[in-house]
Amino acid sequence: MAARRSLIVVSNRGPVTYDRDAAGNRVKRRGGGGLVTALRGLLEHHDVTWIASATTDEDRRVAEEGLGDRDVVLVAHDPAAYDGYYNVIANPLLWFIQHSLWGLATKPDLDRRTHTAWTEGYAAVTRSFAEAVVSQLDNNPDALVFFHDYHLYLAPRMVRDARPEAALAHFVHIPWPPDWSILPPAMRQAIYDGLLANDVVAFHTERWARNFRNGCSDVGTTHVTHHPISIDVAEFDELRESDAVKEREAQLIASRPEKLILRVDRTDPSKNIVRGFRAFRLLLEEHPEWHGRVSMLALLDPSRQAIPEYVEYLATIEQEVAAVNSQLGSDDWLPVDLRVADDFARSVAAYKQFDVLLVNAVYDGMNLVAKEAPLVNDRGGVLVLSENAGAHEELGAWAVTVNPFDVAGQADALHAALTMDEPERRRRAAAIQAHVREHDVVEWIETLLGDFDRASRNVHP
Amino acid sequence: MAARRSLIVVSNRGPVTYDRDAAGNRVKRRGGGGLVTALRGLLEHHDVTWIASATTDEDRRVAEEGLGDRDVVLVAHDPAAYDGYYNVIANPLLWFIQHSLWGLATKPDLDRRTHTAWTEGYAAVTRSFAEAVVSQLDNNPDALVFFHDYHLYLAPRMVRDARPEAALAHFVHIPWPPDWSILPPAMRQAIYDGLLANDVVAFHTERWARNFRNGCSDVGTTHVTHHPISIDVAEFDELRESDAVKEREAQLIASRPEKLILRVDRTDPSKNIVRGFRAFRLLLEEHPEWHGRVSMLALLDPSRQAIPEYVEYLATIEQEVAAVNSQLGSDDWLPVDLRVADDFARSVAAYKQFDVLLVNAVYDGMNLVAKEAPLVNDRGGVLVLSENAGAHEELGAWAVTVNPFDVAGQADALHAALTMDEPERRRRAAAIQAHVREHDVVEWIETLLGDFDRASRNVHP
Repeated sequence: MAARRSLIVVSNRGPVTYDRDAAGNRVKRRGGGGLVTALRGLLEHHDVTWIASATTDEDRRVAEEGLGDRDVVLVAHDPAAYDGYYNVIANPLLWFIQHSLWGLATKPDLDRRTHTAWTEGYAAVTRSFAEAVVSQLDNNPDALVFFHDYHLYLAPRMVRDARPEAALAHFVHIPWPPDWSILPPAMRQAIYDGLLANDVVAFHTERWARNFRNGCSDVGTTHVTHHPISIDVAEFDELRESDAVKEREAQLIASRPEKLILRVDRTDPSKNIVRGFRAFRLLLEEHPEWHGRVSMLALLDPSRQAIPEYVEYLATIEQEVAAVNSQLGSDDWLPVDLRVADDFARSVAAYKQFDVLLVNAVYDGMNLVAKEAPLVNDRGGVLVLSENAGAHEELGAWAVTVNPFDVAGQADALHAALTMDEPERRRRAAAIQAHVREHDVVEWIETLLGDFDRASRNVHP
Repeated sequence: MAARRSLIVVSNRGPVTYDRDAAGNRVKRRGGGGLVTALRGLLEHHDVTWIASATTDEDRRVAEEGLGDRDVVLVAHDPAAYDGYYNVIANPLLWFIQHSLWGLATKPDLDRRTHTAWTEGYAAVTRSFAEAVVSQLDNNPDALVFFHDYHLYLAPRMVRDARPEAALAHFVHIPWPPDWSILPPAMRQAIYDGLLANDVVAFHTERWARNFRNGCSDVGTTHVTHHPISIDVAEFDELRESDAVKEREAQLIASRPEKLILRVDRTDPSKNIVRGFRAFRLLLEEHPEWHGRVSMLALLDPSRQAIPEYVEYLATIEQEVAAVNSQLGSDDWLPVDLRVADDFARSVAAYKQFDVLLVNAVYDGMNLVAKEAPLVNDRGGVLVLSENAGAHEELGAWAVTVNPFDVAGQADALHAALTMDEPERRRRAAAIQAHVREHDVVEWIETLLGDFDRASRNVHP
């Protein structure tokens, strides 16, 4: 285990958030989201100060009072600026660009509101983060500053300008596309310039890192690297044996079909949920022998319903499921079992029960479901995995690979997975489990910090 | 002028097409489309055999009878195969991918029909072309085979396998995107493999050529180059003085506003017509001083109305124009004058009359309107040009550059163009004219053939 060290972690969402209970008392909750879950491991092993946005009214009060956890700095932003930053620029503009979700014929439309949101929202909120980082560096000048994700692209340059000797690293958790020409030159140049102010810029995969390097006219002294994030294996080993999961699993076993195809996702267009249903429908049309024997369980966590594209996408999901079930279902067989809710215990129970796991993302920085579910599963379940998910660089050799746009190919892949013989299934599942156990989130953090140390020694010997 | 040489030109559309007149007699017409127009210059300077698809019933009869022009070989395809080749694969799949027109969240859907169209349409039709080329090479083994565009990506490999010593070149007239992961691996590998069977692969711009090279794991001995296509300057010098154009121009002069913004395009989503109207509307909203003084004339040639996306796009265009005119127009001022028709004389007349030419394509291999219109114009009209049009590599220094997605930026650019002082306008317009006169389509052909000779000598010394 590496030595404890001083880190300033910066991300939009933090490890804690505050609310009031019915009696009006302040209550503290764990922050949500995959990024926070993955980074929480840092807190155990290092001395971390975590800078994040105040996202609730109570967070704002805590921020104003200067109270709350000693190690968490909540930054309260102007509400209009935060709206521009979060609901106009970061989501959906940057997210959609980085997952190639725009049909460029008519969208996006960068109108005056976008330009205002860029300068008075995204840049302004990022500046608040940068100022909070500089304050922390005044207390702790040797700390490593560790920025996260697409909310903060402009912050490293701002900190670098104020503190030229600071040690800065940035992890981008989502795909880096080969072409940023959707953004006007001034915006895309600011993004590259912001990131290149870091000592290290890191991605999950070699592919995203290569796209980033190809997009730079000059990477200067910045070290561009990739380290695939992973999961907390010990946590899932505990979870799978917990009462909540076992209760859910008993319900599932009572109703499960002979063969269970599972998908677990947020209702995000990048997750490619609609094409997954179309592929399953095609499988059933072409292979009537599966009727009544196989079902698809879709556990979907509703996501970003403040953004119209996400509202529409959820409606399309529901229409597609209704169409499949009404066309092919019968009194005693429901082809698709759709559950739109946030229920993690049920997801883990389903991880134990699947025969085929479908992860067909359009693009995905990593995709942790592809690691979590095979780790927990003990049926020799088969992973059907998109070639555009970051996890494919690690797990592709033991998965059935699919192109996310190829619906016919996905139907073939589901059939191949359902009919794979048991020794082959067991061999692949065991290989995935061994890989995930060996390369867990603790390893991710240590290799990333090691990389940073080497880069930093080169710059500030 | 270079020596006459023997060329086999291969493109989907050819230089002539046949029909019957009212009396039932066979009539021959010039083939349409920008590619054919550009390549027609070849016929004057070299000994050309041109292989193209039979596209009319009469073409098919000519092909069966083995009659028609001695130098034109019309290949008659199976109608179902041609439908898959043309209406499923080439347009829209390849066209949409290469112009980044898909919103990947839900489209495209590569279903069984796509897979069938790939093997039984695209590959089959391409094979017919390859067989026609091989027959010609049997008569004329030293001829240079010159393939054109996205209809024929698989043909060079088929010819190379049959005739290893053949001299093969391929010109891609549309953009080459940095990411082909929308196509399943087998399809995208076949496309690269097909193109890399050529001695030379050429594009309009350094940008498309670089994207192609980055997408190759191995370019082997193929020479990848770029040569911007151009126009027949002498033809436009004649056209501008023709009676048809002068008649149209007189009509235009009688009704033109103080300042005329012009766009001339096919109704193709890649041309970005809808965002152009939104930008013009924003200009009028933010600058009421232009009300009544400036109009946008949109001369649009209806395109590919067999493809649903094109039908929808034309409807959106008409809605957008109706919205602008009803919101801002008055009894004596129509902000947008929309003409949906194929009327080349009117386009050339408008080329003479514009004050601002808007070319804001999402992506465009080259865009010849950006060369034709400034060549003909004598009012010192200003070119507003997309950074994603191939023409921008040549003409960007003298244009007002726009990002095609940045509607607010386009409104600013139109205002800047309308208010640019006359000496500056004249200086830029003269520079564009001089460039186009110097680099015309004859030069394009000669430099391309020169490049081919050098590459060919390296391979077959």
